Amino acid sequence: MSDLSHKWEELPSKYESLAGRAFTSTIVAEEVDPTCHPLREFNKFVVSPGLLAGTFAPSSGRLSVGGKSPLTGGIKEANAGGLTATKLAFINIRGIIIEGIPSAGTKDWYSILLRKDKCEIIKTNDYAGIGLYDLLTKIWKDYPSKPGIIGCGMAGQRLSKGAGVFGNNIENTDPGRYAGRGGLGAVLGSKRIVAIISDDTGGTRPEPKDKEKFDNGRKKLRDALNEHPVTGRLKDAEGNPFGGLKNFGTNILQNIINEAGALPTKGFKEGRFEHAAKISGEAVHELVDKTLENFGEKSEGIYGHPCHPGCVMACSNVVPYEKTGKAQVSPLEYESAWALGSNLGIGVLHDVAELNRLCNDLGLDTIETGNTLAMLMQGGLLKFGDGKGAIEALKQVYDENSALGRLVCSGALTAGQALGVTRIPVVKGQSFPAYDPRAISGIGVTYATSPMGGDHTAGYTIAAEILGIKGEREDPRKLEKSDLSRAFQATTAYIDSTGYCLFIAFCILDMDEGFGGMTDTVNGFLGKEIDVTEYGMNILKKEYDFNRRAGFTKKDDRLPEFFYKEPIPPHNVTFDVPNEELDKVFKDF
Amino acid sequence: MSDLSHKWEELPSKYESLAGRAFTSTIVAEEVDPTCHPLREFNKFVVSPGLLAGTFAPSSGRLSVGGKSPLTGGIKEANAGGLTATKLAFINIRGIIIEGIPSAGTKDWYSILLRKDKCEIIKTNDYAGIGLYDLLTKIWKDYPSKPGIIGCGMAGQRLSKGAGVFGNNIENTDPGRYAGRGGLGAVLGSKRIVAIISDDTGGTRPEPKDKEKFDNGRKKLRDALNEHPVTGRLKDAEGNPFGGLKNFGTNILQNIINEAGALPTKGFKEGRFEHAAKISGEAVHELVDKTLENFGEKSEGIYGHPCHPGCVMACSNVVPYEKTGKAQVSPLEYESAWALGSNLGIGVLHDVAELNRLCNDLGLDTIETGNTLAMLMQGGLLKFGDGKGAIEALKQVYDENSALGRLVCSGALTAGQALGVTRIPVVKGQSFPAYDPRAISGIGVTYATSPMGGDHTAGYTIAAEILGIKGEREDPRKLEKSDLSRAFQATTAYIDSTGYCLFIAFCILDMDEGFGGMTDTVNGFLGKEIDVTEYGMNILKKEYDFNRRAGFTKKDDRLPEFFYKEPIPPHNVTFDVPNEELDKVFKDF
Repeated sequence: MSDLSHKWEELPSKYESLAGRAFTSTIVAEEVDPTCHPLREFNKFVVSPGLLAGTFAPSSGRLSVGGKSPLTGGIKEANAGGLTATKLAFINIRGIIIEGIPSAGTKDWYSILLRKDKCEIIKTNDYAGIGLYDLLTKIWKDYPSKPGIIGCGMAGQRLSKGAGVFGNNIENTDPGRYAGRGGLGAVLGSKRIVAIISDDTGGTRPEPKDKEKFDNGRKKLRDALNEHPVTGRLKDAEGNPFGGLKNFGTNILQNIINEAGALPTKGFKEGRFEHAAKISGEAVHELVDKTLENFGEKSEGIYGHPCHPGCVMACSNVVPYEKTGKAQVSPLEYESAWALGSNLGIGVLHDVAELNRLCNDLGLDTIETGNTLAMLMQGGLLKFGDGKGAIEALKQVYDENSALGRLVCSGALTAGQALGVTRIPVVKGQSFPAYDPRAISGIGVTYATSPMGGDHTAGYTIAAEILGIKGEREDPRKLEKSDLSRAFQATTAYIDSTGYCLFIAFCILDMDEGFGGMTDTVNGFLGKEIDVTEYGMNILKKEYDFNRRAGFTKKDDRLPEFFYKEPIPPHNVTFDVPNEELDKVFKDF
Repeated sequence: MSDLSHKWEELPSKYESLAGRAFTSTIVAEEVDPTCHPLREFNKFVVSPGLLAGTFAPSSGRLSVGGKSPLTGGIKEANAGGLTATKLAFINIRGIIIEGIPSAGTKDWYSILLRKDKCEIIKTNDYAGIGLYDLLTKIWKDYPSKPGIIGCGMAGQRLSKGAGVFGNNIENTDPGRYAGRGGLGAVLGSKRIVAIISDDTGGTRPEPKDKEKFDNGRKKLRDALNEHPVTGRLKDAEGNPFGGLKNFGTNILQNIINEAGALPTKGFKEGRFEHAAKISGEAVHELVDKTLENFGEKSEGIYGHPCHPGCVMACSNVVPYEKTGKAQVSPLEYESAWALGSNLGIGVLHDVAELNRLCNDLGLDTIETGNTLAMLMQGGLLKFGDGKGAIEALKQVYDENSALGRLVCSGALTAGQALGVTRIPVVKGQSFPAYDPRAISGIGVTYATSPMGGDHTAGYTIAAEILGIKGEREDPRKLEKSDLSRAFQATTAYIDSTGYCLFIAFCILDMDEGFGGMTDTVNGFLGKEIDVTEYGMNILKKEYDFNRRAGFTKKDDRLPEFFYKEPIPPHNVTFDVPNEELDKVFKDF
């Protein structure tokens, strides 16, 4: 971006099997000075579609973005669905590495347009400073081929640490797909880039090297996903939908985690929220049914839609306005409903949906922003439970001269510290998601040790501790969780590289056909055998090493003090995993 | 404070020679868990008068306060003049160690009252939430013996990281004495303490063990201080005052450092400020003359007053209102005039004085707050040069619901990050003072390596690089400054323990009698020989080790990226000291 130029590079053969997170983390670890300022010229913004993006493998179209995080000061990968991974795969792009920043003091904003064998850096000042719903509508009008789009909104354009990287939904211009975490939207903003537009006109679908193995694998995985109770389309004896991402979206977890006493409520003060049911996946489901009825249609209880082309799980929901039938926000994920709902003591579904819609429009990570709003509440600028107040605070972001608006975008650590809050739920500067580590210890081990900072997706031990694997559940209160967390973190690093959605985890853990399907597709695509754990650990090692070179020590692999000292109701437990157990996770690095 | 109790302890013999910074840093290093949250129950707030406080040694009544800093996350000592050190010495108190916090959720505020052989913890809710000018007037009304007072203002009470520890002036109730740095006011606030009141009624002056040596030493030092051009009272051939702290206060440096091209201007953008002269010590001097004339008195050009009893330098000035003759603020130090003036592009003396007065009233460190206001200016919430705007922003602090007010108190790092500023002049989270390290490399070495974070007083190489020692000046642009900085840091750690004001440095460096006077008083007081460098290095090692245990690495001993990359006019230089040179400073630790 320093001279607004680009060049093409052939993928070096040593990078052949690196895609998604493996690609972004390798490039960042090798090319970015770990001590550089994340929002100045020496950081890089790296984009890479998962390995199987664009293929017929089911649910494999995720996109990774990476860089040095302005939120954590460490390495960061965030991923999301949307159209871009598939589009890039079709035009044969394994990765985009954005370097430098335009000359100091420029007021211009740019977009990057990628087409088959073409790249343009275009001045697009009219794309900056507007809401993302408007921006995406504008871009699809400017580019009628309906390209994939990722980019940053107002928050990222102002270099706010709560800024995520948005992506467009696949069938409309809603900015509903967020590689939200780590403030990577601000890295794009620092490079004066609003949007990266990927058009696959004239492109072709990627071909696996061993087509037979690949096809065999994708069918096995597809069938496993369709059969599994979490990812399949299931009905009970009376024909009513039950369980499952497809029926209730990820937000089915709201009631489950609340029941487990691990739903962080009112700024991690309690483990149960009295109004959890009102903002749960079931409540959204009911609202959809009612709305469809209002408009003369009868829902079959199935309204999930996919986040990327070729996803068979299709777990995305919509929160409609009853009176118009139009979408208020789409999707409302569990993490967002928690962060902007239970975590703030807000139990009004439309208030939560509105907060999510505003985050989407402004380019904000919902998890970070929800935690930041909780800091405002603890710091006395808002009241817990005040949905309207939270909405007004978030709307302040549209006014760039509002100090409150800036604070709302700045991430929980910065806002919490500005407000004198001593209960800031972060590790390495990144806010915790929707599982209280006191009630579920393994996820706390992941929060503490992941090179990504506080992050559930980095090693989702909840699958073992709450949902159970092959019918067996790990005791959520057991303290020896280093092996469990490491295993999840390694497998996750692999999955995050393949393009597969992390939600295949449920079926690959429970069903041998699922796991085999996953590895067969990857190995079939590459025409060689990859060891899942070795591949994942290799990525983690690069990430861990980057952080160490950035100045991180074991002291950064700890939870905040209050988790060790303040028991959380209803179980009245603290986080008791000893430091030695935490340090076992990456003892070999 | 957990159970509002106290106990007295005899000073253990191993601590006999530890006072001031040596005392606070030893207690913090030995008793505080370096990984604890600085604003929760496990931090301690430690107070200690310098070793010679209360004695007849000249200019030896400084007070140290210490703890784990909420601003840096490392160990912190800050010191100031005022009455308290002398009062504590008279009632035979070497140190105060405040532990714990009152039970969670309490709204009560406390003060600690120290008298001869008595300590009370008193509920003083009427002392909280008010300006410090009013508070100190109230306390001297409540305690007509005119006790020493230290404490925290609104900023500290809200746990803001910009909060300093105030002390009272010696002859009035102005909160003009600040142990400002490191956010230690917030540590007091976290313990729900507004004021520590020290009354020496019935106390006695401390007696040196070797009175002859001590008396001989104090006379040598007194004479040397009076003769030295920086600290003495000098007139030129025509009888006009020239040079010297006594004539112009510390703010005599405004023109000197400006001339050197090292006066950080408009957020460290430039090294010269066109209006520096208007806010300089000379300008204050002229204003005082004019005001005195208005009121029928003729100034003799000497208006300095001492910051603590027994100071012969008496370098404190007053900025009066011309029309009333009353003090607007007292004193206006160089660092404050710079931080709130040149650094903000504000060249109107009364605006700068008003900003300082507001900081004093609110309990804010002027250096940290000036840098924070510069972040607001860089972040677009204010404009450089807008004195009235800065005053209004600072006044927002009186409204605890103002997000802008909270941001103003939160320190430059937090405010800068909230606002997307990538030029934040901090090391270890603490803002830089009034010397640009690009133009004067040695002070940059101190900023980078001091365990205190960005701090000029930790190793004031300016004395060698700008003012010169025994007529010789170190080249300010030479890069080999590790030995110089280490020598200054060690000697400073010693001086900060003796109770001596750091400004004796000029005469002890230039005059053998001065140095001998200093060591004779210390050795005479203790009745044993202390090696200056060994004593100082021992303190530094404890501090450095605390920080290492807190998670600091060599990566924390670096200046922010922009100092290495953006040349500063007029000399157009960057900070070029190699990391290896920085790491030499404490290579033996």
